[in-house]
Amino acid sequence: MATLVVLGSGIMATALATPLADNGHTVRLVGTHLDREIIDSIQKTGIHPNLKLKVPEGTTAYQLEDAAEAFEGVDLVMSGVNSFGVEWAGEQLAGLLRPGMHVIALAKGMRADDQGNLDILPNVLMRQVPEEVRDQVTWSAIAGPSIAGEVAVHRHTCVTFAGKDQAALDMWKELFETDFYHVWTNTDLTGIELMAATKNCYAFGAGFMHGTLTRMLEESGESDPLYVNYNYGAALFGQASIEMQEWLQLLECDPQTVMGIAGIGDCFVTSMGGRNVKVGTLVGTGMTFSEAKAQMPGVTLEGATCIVVVGEALKKLTERGVVPPEQFPLLRHLYEVVGEDKPVDVPWKTFFGQHGDGR
Amino acid sequence: MATLVVLGSGIMATALATPLADNGHTVRLVGTHLDREIIDSIQKTGIHPNLKLKVPEGTTAYQLEDAAEAFEGVDLVMSGVNSFGVEWAGEQLAGLLRPGMHVIALAKGMRADDQGNLDILPNVLMRQVPEEVRDQVTWSAIAGPSIAGEVAVHRHTCVTFAGKDQAALDMWKELFETDFYHVWTNTDLTGIELMAATKNCYAFGAGFMHGTLTRMLEESGESDPLYVNYNYGAALFGQASIEMQEWLQLLECDPQTVMGIAGIGDCFVTSMGGRNVKVGTLVGTGMTFSEAKAQMPGVTLEGATCIVVVGEALKKLTERGVVPPEQFPLLRHLYEVVGEDKPVDVPWKTFFGQHGDGR
Repeated sequence: MATLVVLGSGIMATALATPLADNGHTVRLVGTHLDREIIDSIQKTGIHPNLKLKVPEGTTAYQLEDAAEAFEGVDLVMSGVNSFGVEWAGEQLAGLLRPGMHVIALAKGMRADDQGNLDILPNVLMRQVPEEVRDQVTWSAIAGPSIAGEVAVHRHTCVTFAGKDQAALDMWKELFETDFYHVWTNTDLTGIELMAATKNCYAFGAGFMHGTLTRMLEESGESDPLYVNYNYGAALFGQASIEMQEWLQLLECDPQTVMGIAGIGDCFVTSMGGRNVKVGTLVGTGMTFSEAKAQMPGVTLEGATCIVVVGEALKKLTERGVVPPEQFPLLRHLYEVVGEDKPVDVPWKTFFGQHGDGR
Repeated sequence: MATLVVLGSGIMATALATPLADNGHTVRLVGTHLDREIIDSIQKTGIHPNLKLKVPEGTTAYQLEDAAEAFEGVDLVMSGVNSFGVEWAGEQLAGLLRPGMHVIALAKGMRADDQGNLDILPNVLMRQVPEEVRDQVTWSAIAGPSIAGEVAVHRHTCVTFAGKDQAALDMWKELFETDFYHVWTNTDLTGIELMAATKNCYAFGAGFMHGTLTRMLEESGESDPLYVNYNYGAALFGQASIEMQEWLQLLECDPQTVMGIAGIGDCFVTSMGGRNVKVGTLVGTGMTFSEAKAQMPGVTLEGATCIVVVGEALKKLTERGVVPPEQFPLLRHLYEVVGEDKPVDVPWKTFFGQHGDGR
């Protein structure tokens, strides 16, 4: 049986201790400086306060200052820090990794340079680690569709593990796979990470469906409508699927990666709820993004942040002639809403290409 | 301004009078022998009893015996009869169509011959019409994603009109398109109809997500669960997207037709609710399909019927070596559940090909 050390003790990192523990493995959770209370709680009561569940038997928790102790004798590392802390996590790992270790990362998002060139977070993470160690460590990533709490309580979940090293992926799959946590592997790392990041952008838009309905009902004085607003959501979801495939083509990944779990499946589960959809809903009711965000103080919004990163990159890529201005109309509108505080006004007629399917 | 005659007065056929009326067109609804009470109600009160809404100004209703009167002087025909009545509708049209007329059809489903060869419903419809008339009429079809009632109350809706005759599609688009009803056209008629039919099959499976959660909570005694069952639904949705693309390949359609509104978008909206999802939910709780169906007497279940047609065809196609036995594992399981009354036991490990995306 193996031991894993996890940097970051957020809900997804902690939830993944469930399939690992089911397979008899031991997990050491190391909190970041922001996770102090989480680690305190797990050490005292065994309960993760955000996940609202007891961590599995055999899972132990360490404050950041005890990281070196947690990493002792362990060569399997999960980077569980979210998209805002990837550079920080890489810097920490720089001092903790040794040749021969294996890293698997959870953060979902994108970074862009000042020319608008997009990069995936596993690359950002590994770049913080000195080359002589980096090249002797394998780097993999876990992609959805998985809501963390559902994994923690043994709901059936099908996920993709992605990376360049198939042997490392096979090893991770064997460690994690159980009767309820089902794992597929894919070496299109960039494509899988691109799907995991952009689905967060498009799920923000899924909230518009609920928000615009609320606004329409308020305007009409109806309280219990006969008919809701799913046609609207279906159209946004359809356009999201087309744009996600176009992102794959732009970054020279396999366009097929959008199909199945990592693209369309993950966009589905993310559109069903969560913080991003909540803010998108508020914006759909007629608030500006700034007003909506002010109603959710202290809440991290990875989807909205990703919209700004990708939307700004898209502007630069369009100026440079890399992307034609008629491509990505939904992402461009999401950027207007989130990055420029404009009202929701979905540009339907610009969607779906000529045939309704992106062509 | 144009006049359209509609054979069949179901909720979708009637809802489409809304965009037509908004564009100043006149609609004549002709009820089938099963629609007698609907037509009575519209004639007396203007209200469609199933849609629970007043039909638009200018919409008139005719009993079946007055069909010839309704068709007088009209050359735009909508076949609004559902999938169970397509042959009947074709026989009626055989006596009512004249060369130069244009037909657009709504029914969604498939037919198969005794070799398992699948065919789309517009073909079934037109085959009932004598060749000399059939060839001098254009045949088009309307595909989703659109919940009828939402169209009737002006919710934003994006749909695909499909057919072999681009000029006819352009004409229909101009008749229907409004500020809220947005139309794309696609000449991959077989592909679009295949998506519209199979999405009903897969939406039945979407109910399993809710039903299995209910069963799990009953077994555990929980009433207000912290975490529901979206990962399960996302995985089914992901596999549905892969199989819908495989159906396109099998029938030599464009695999891209699954993207956007007619495939993925329509599967999304259909998975959000309706009769099929309700039966799927009951089955997910542990009932057999027969038991679940008995709880919904008099309700037509187009999705379940399509599962039987396609599932039986799939068996024959597999026996004939046309389809490999490992393809379409979700549809095969849906057939076990609906056609053979077996319990839900999703074969997760057979899904998603090797890489999670169908390859």
